[in-house]
Amino acid sequence: MSTMMTTIETAAWLKERDNFLIITHRRPDGDTVGCAGALAQGLSEAGKTAYVLYNPEITPRYSRFVEEYWTLDGYEPEHFITVDIASYELFPKNGSEYIGSVTMSIDHHPSNTLYAELTCLDGTAASCGEVIYEILMALSGSVSVICAECLYAAVSTDTGCFAFANTTANTLHVASLLIEAGAPSRKLNRQLFRTKTRNRIMIEGMILSGLEFYFNDEVAIATITREMMKTANADEDDIDDIASIPGIIEGVRAGITIREMASVNDCKVSVRTSPGVDAHAISARFGGGGHQMASGFTVDKPVPEVKGALLEVLIDFFRN
Amino acid sequence: MSTMMTTIETAAWLKERDNFLIITHRRPDGDTVGCAGALAQGLSEAGKTAYVLYNPEITPRYSRFVEEYWTLDGYEPEHFITVDIASYELFPKNGSEYIGSVTMSIDHHPSNTLYAELTCLDGTAASCGEVIYEILMALSGSVSVICAECLYAAVSTDTGCFAFANTTANTLHVASLLIEAGAPSRKLNRQLFRTKTRNRIMIEGMILSGLEFYFNDEVAIATITREMMKTANADEDDIDDIASIPGIIEGVRAGITIREMASVNDCKVSVRTSPGVDAHAISARFGGGGHQMASGFTVDKPVPEVKGALLEVLIDFFRN
Repeated sequence: MSTMMTTIETAAWLKERDNFLIITHRRPDGDTVGCAGALAQGLSEAGKTAYVLYNPEITPRYSRFVEEYWTLDGYEPEHFITVDIASYELFPKNGSEYIGSVTMSIDHHPSNTLYAELTCLDGTAASCGEVIYEILMALSGSVSVICAECLYAAVSTDTGCFAFANTTANTLHVASLLIEAGAPSRKLNRQLFRTKTRNRIMIEGMILSGLEFYFNDEVAIATITREMMKTANADEDDIDDIASIPGIIEGVRAGITIREMASVNDCKVSVRTSPGVDAHAISARFGGGGHQMASGFTVDKPVPEVKGALLEVLIDFFRN
Repeated sequence: MSTMMTTIETAAWLKERDNFLIITHRRPDGDTVGCAGALAQGLSEAGKTAYVLYNPEITPRYSRFVEEYWTLDGYEPEHFITVDIASYELFPKNGSEYIGSVTMSIDHHPSNTLYAELTCLDGTAASCGEVIYEILMALSGSVSVICAECLYAAVSTDTGCFAFANTTANTLHVASLLIEAGAPSRKLNRQLFRTKTRNRIMIEGMILSGLEFYFNDEVAIATITREMMKTANADEDDIDDIASIPGIIEGVRAGITIREMASVNDCKVSVRTSPGVDAHAISARFGGGGHQMASGFTVDKPVPEVKGALLEVLIDFFRN
């Protein structure tokens, strides 16, 4: 069983120890990377030695928040800390050797499996960055400009720049304190939220132009073919969160994205719904699943057949 | 000359008086409407009589924040208060009779012309909502749920949900306090920032698909024709802030939008640039103007000719 720690206890624990290795999660996002960078920097400022395990899936978008702290060859850490990692399944591929020996898990996912010896968890926080902020404040009484920049990236990316439903009063309060501490929020907001790659713009244009509406315009279906991806020269980074597009249209209660994967006979379907339409139940009809408002499934059929089968199933959800 | 008032002095002034008429600005946005709704509600809660002058340009998007307080027939106000109005030019069409008799201007525009007898101005605030928040706190010591909802709409819309460069630590701090006071931020964020009309989606798709790139992809040109507007069934509301689209593309230093207006021989051009490219200088070559990073002009020529003339001028800015 894992021992639960408050942020103050965690700061005291860190203060008494040295030589840390920080681990980020698979497909690293701004929260896990920003937390790792801030914690490594904060511990260094407190006179400790701390590095971050290199994450092979790091993208250029987030690399700069952590790259100074990638592990050096021959570094022999004593304590292993994970940030924003809810379970072993989310460990990076090169982190499997640390499974079973994690000393401290710092997280905000209520689903944390309590896999670490010690756990510092705030399940009400929108981002792990808010938890790290409290720990660093307890550790040093302030956060440096570098820590503030990393934590602003963490908090803002996990909340879609404070627009997602997870955003709380405390999220905005912490973000406010981070700006006061010197986080360059203007620059970060521009880079993280107000810049799109040309490939993203191209694929978005194709998706929007190809949107189809059904059932009194309550269902919107977007299609992403392999051909479109090729034409737009788009990669996975370029279509990040693209499944949310059909769902943002006024009046649409089910936004569905059909994407050709490895071949034209391999489709991945994402379903996003408004309250009252059970996304899980729709995907379950195809052997998939998920949550009430977000679900998905895969089918080994070409797009037109997938669309046909979907529309048939949707009759049960939109014609009664 | 106008007498400058602090928010505390303004609250004291309001407390000693009664029968207010609040005026919002031409083409009303979330800030002016949210401020008017919050101030009218806050004054009513404090036992005062306050109404808002009907704004003939109000849109369904913001109407609900203020509609309960539209002026009644026969109401005879004693004091005239403007919110978020920098100058007489921004008065609504039906507000011209009040020009010259405004008692109090509450605003956040440094450019406020000090046209009112009394002025409560915070030129560092991202939104007028932050100023009204301080006034209501000084007036009553708290803000009600309804006031908080109106003010959250004001603060969040004027900052693009906290992503625009005007956002400050105080903006986020006030937003945090408004959520604590009961502002339904999840619902508002979804309605105001995460919902687009189908017409908007259609016109965006057409614009993105038609983007053209020049000068090593540092210039992006978007075109909006009358035909496109008709096909998408789009109105002015649907293309709000659309001129910012070409400028958000990575690597683009000048994002230009050419729009056909009353006829195919009447084009309006918007220029948005990154630091280092003088938007004002570009537009000045066509008799227009504006700021360093945002400018515009009009030309009585069809789109292809406008584009040709622009590209010729841009040589001076991108080939040296």
